[in-house]
Amino acid sequence: MATAGKVIKCRAAVAWEPKAPLMMEEIEVAPPQEGEIRIKVIATGLCHTDLYHLVDGDKRGFPVVLGHESAGVVESVGPGVTDYKPGDKVIPLFLSQCGKCKFCKCPKTNLCESSWATKYHDIMAEPTSRFTCRGQTILQFMGTSTFSEYTVINQNAVAKIDENAPLDRVFLLGCGITTGYGAAVNTAGVTPGSVCAVFGLGAVGLAAVMGCKNAGASRIFAVDINEKKFEKAKVFGATDFLNPKAYNKPISEVLIEMTNGGGVDFSIECTGNTEVMRSALESCAKGWGVSVVVGWTNVQDFSAKPIQLIYGKTWKGSLFGGFKCKDSVPKLVRDYMSGKIMLDEFITHKMNLEQVNDAINLMKTGQGIRTIMTVSK
Amino acid sequence: MATAGKVIKCRAAVAWEPKAPLMMEEIEVAPPQEGEIRIKVIATGLCHTDLYHLVDGDKRGFPVVLGHESAGVVESVGPGVTDYKPGDKVIPLFLSQCGKCKFCKCPKTNLCESSWATKYHDIMAEPTSRFTCRGQTILQFMGTSTFSEYTVINQNAVAKIDENAPLDRVFLLGCGITTGYGAAVNTAGVTPGSVCAVFGLGAVGLAAVMGCKNAGASRIFAVDINEKKFEKAKVFGATDFLNPKAYNKPISEVLIEMTNGGGVDFSIECTGNTEVMRSALESCAKGWGVSVVVGWTNVQDFSAKPIQLIYGKTWKGSLFGGFKCKDSVPKLVRDYMSGKIMLDEFITHKMNLEQVNDAINLMKTGQGIRTIMTVSK
Repeated sequence: MATAGKVIKCRAAVAWEPKAPLMMEEIEVAPPQEGEIRIKVIATGLCHTDLYHLVDGDKRGFPVVLGHESAGVVESVGPGVTDYKPGDKVIPLFLSQCGKCKFCKCPKTNLCESSWATKYHDIMAEPTSRFTCRGQTILQFMGTSTFSEYTVINQNAVAKIDENAPLDRVFLLGCGITTGYGAAVNTAGVTPGSVCAVFGLGAVGLAAVMGCKNAGASRIFAVDINEKKFEKAKVFGATDFLNPKAYNKPISEVLIEMTNGGGVDFSIECTGNTEVMRSALESCAKGWGVSVVVGWTNVQDFSAKPIQLIYGKTWKGSLFGGFKCKDSVPKLVRDYMSGKIMLDEFITHKMNLEQVNDAINLMKTGQGIRTIMTVSK
Repeated sequence: MATAGKVIKCRAAVAWEPKAPLMMEEIEVAPPQEGEIRIKVIATGLCHTDLYHLVDGDKRGFPVVLGHESAGVVESVGPGVTDYKPGDKVIPLFLSQCGKCKFCKCPKTNLCESSWATKYHDIMAEPTSRFTCRGQTILQFMGTSTFSEYTVINQNAVAKIDENAPLDRVFLLGCGITTGYGAAVNTAGVTPGSVCAVFGLGAVGLAAVMGCKNAGASRIFAVDINEKKFEKAKVFGATDFLNPKAYNKPISEVLIEMTNGGGVDFSIECTGNTEVMRSALESCAKGWGVSVVVGWTNVQDFSAKPIQLIYGKTWKGSLFGGFKCKDSVPKLVRDYMSGKIMLDEFITHKMNLEQVNDAINLMKTGQGIRTIMTVSK
């Protein structure tokens, strides 16, 4: 393309400081360096992790371009990149998969030593960036930064996907849906006929419901204090619906009673609230219950009574649903295209990038599930 | 025997109230009822759980006869008991295995619905008892109560063992050794070549070290603030020895540095201290580390940052080492008799039951590992 090797000036939503509205700015995007890919972002979503960083993130992680759930097209590639070419459809990944490190070689984990997350999870960005604005370096959030028309990403963190994939749908596989779905099918390892509970019915929680359903769960409790979410949860396979505020006792006790005193086989926490993490563990069956923490928070401790574990429960966590990212995202795209997983049903609002602060407000007030923001045409 | 069907008067150490010294008393032991077995206790150990209940236990759990780690001989059996006869060598079990409940039928757990632990873990005893003293019911601790010459136990909680087994050694398999050993080989699932850390080097921790060694661990860190324990830990297979008080940073950081930044594959907490539980989790490897809580406490919460789990660590707990008790204890007795596991090396003091308060003081001051108390000749 005509832009290859040159700095591209383009529009981006910049978070100059924590808690402030994002500002649409013209930024400069440097050409990709060794092993990097410059991507034209077509569609992006807003995820709670963007909001978490904006509201509660480390000050050293600013100024920054947020956004990490997207799909786009390769504009140009840096030296040494042979597996990607301009025009390829891709999904940027907030984890990487170098294929060579101890994590990549281990089937038990989807971490990767080359990821920003390995060293810089406190600021949620690497110290280097290809972005500048008014002479200042703008950090790249989670190695991606998709609230920009163009971004530069290491090839270890880019999934090449089917050339017929609809980018305005499969962008959802860049974070939330993959995270929730995998938390059920991979991390929890939901088994056929089991009883599950999903806490929090945002996109991640609804995807966890879908995962429980696809794994063959016989009963899926959907738990949220916002009852408007229940209708959608039913679409994804939930069978029972609980609003903790409707009971005058802990929701874990309610769940234990509703399962004949046994508790659920698998619980999946998708809120990032440490009290809910505790409830999810306490709702599990003694002897074999598995509770999975999915909601991202690093501010507060979670806690519980040791006896919860001693009586045979297991507490786990899930990052990107346990999926090895470059291997799995192209497969999940095909699963969507073949009808095995749903994506369309998650999208409740359509906007363009200029309306990002409206999208943030929708999320803050719990309206809708996922907003698609068109970034480039 | 001449005593069958009659009340037996015998000596027992009674804990009349929390925190007070035990009192040697003459108690009455009723004959075994349907499905029960009356046992002459030959040897008993003192375990931290006895001490925990004495010091921190629920007041409703008193007066009580403590003791749950022992071996003895069947004196008589109640109606309906066909698998045991007078003279059989047995190990009383603080868990039961009825073989019929949902837990017993599930290979993932060693819980049992017929156990006191299922319903009465707050008072650590069932409301009924076969003991009286001066007209008052004396509770049976953990369904066993082995600080008595005779005790009555449900047949679901008695393991019949090899007739040649030395009772003054295999009594150790009634709790601590089985608990620590199984935490490593069953609950953690220590793998060959792995790196392990055991926190707390009492009998349970030393047995966990032995479990790590028998499972093929290549490196075993032994962690304790009492350096006198290190020599014994070496006997059981520990390769590295750490005193947290010798460092001016958290012991988890020390362990991560000593493992090239990786952390340990398996950590096993055997202290009952919730801060140590946190350290044990934090010492684990991102991606696949498994931390097992073994120390029994129900007073304080344990806590950690959610990111510990989200980055791929698993937090589990272990009760009686995950062993299905009636099935496994006879096998462990044979493992001792064939030299596969060590027991003699745990015993550091020999007393008789009258000296139980001395044994308690030894444990409180961290002297020795296990005291054997002779109860009957």
